[in-house]
Amino acid sequence: MSLADARWIDLTHSDDERGTLTALEGEAIPFPIRRLFYMHRVPWKLERGHHAHRYTRQCLIPVAGAFAIDAWDATTAATYVLDDPNRGLYLPVMTWVRLYDFRPETVALVLCDTVYNPAHVVRDRREYERLMREASPAT
Amino acid sequence: MSLADARWIDLTHSDDERGTLTALEGEAIPFPIRRLFYMHRVPWKLERGHHAHRYTRQCLIPVAGAFAIDAWDATTAATYVLDDPNRGLYLPVMTWVRLYDFRPETVALVLCDTVYNPAHVVRDRREYERLMREASPAT
Repeated sequence: MSLADARWIDLTHSDDERGTLTALEGEAIPFPIRRLFYMHRVPWKLERGHHAHRYTRQCLIPVAGAFAIDAWDATTAATYVLDDPNRGLYLPVMTWVRLYDFRPETVALVLCDTVYNPAHVVRDRREYERLMREASPAT
Repeated sequence: MSLADARWIDLTHSDDERGTLTALEGEAIPFPIRRLFYMHRVPWKLERGHHAHRYTRQCLIPVAGAFAIDAWDATTAATYVLDDPNRGLYLPVMTWVRLYDFRPETVALVLCDTVYNPAHVVRDRREYERLMREASPAT
């Protein structure tokens, strides 16, 4: 439940005269995939996210185009630019995210280790901060 | 092991002012995902495929762009145009495929129920036809 667990995942790929084939299998898949989704046709200047998933780990991959993520945990913030279709970003549970700067052609693929449950999405930032304080009480 | 088992899979999606979110989860995922890959930057006029997977089921999704597939089993042939990011194509094991007509911006996402094993890919058409005859002997 810390941004310290976020990490880039370099994806196996082969480039040749037939184009590029990028693959995830076996150990490269960071968790059992229970859901996958992709965001596309996102309008220019639009932001997505502004929430955290209580129990879901995610791996985000810009399979086309590019976008940016601002991410937070209880104490730190980080910005990631996703612009390489051969590199994914792993985010742990309870990462608050803001997604923005979608290029028009962007397809943002997201792998998840749970199915979607709207009751497990925190959309209020103060509620998020309260939950994070409860999970990591000051000592 | 028959094209009769091939089928389109309509994917759940939501369109709103934030763009489109297309998802697969639970029963919509046609099998446990052991591997996923995507083909991109495929040159104009180039063909891919020309093989069959002995033990691998696949679901192909044109998450960007469009392409076409000619598919064969022992006795029949079919052509599929994949141009809708909200619809995937399920193909059973031992489907011989030819992929072509890739639009420049195409990203072809493929979900598989096995990891990749080059020994389980049939690349010789006569070998393919022999294997299919053995699997379905004339009565």
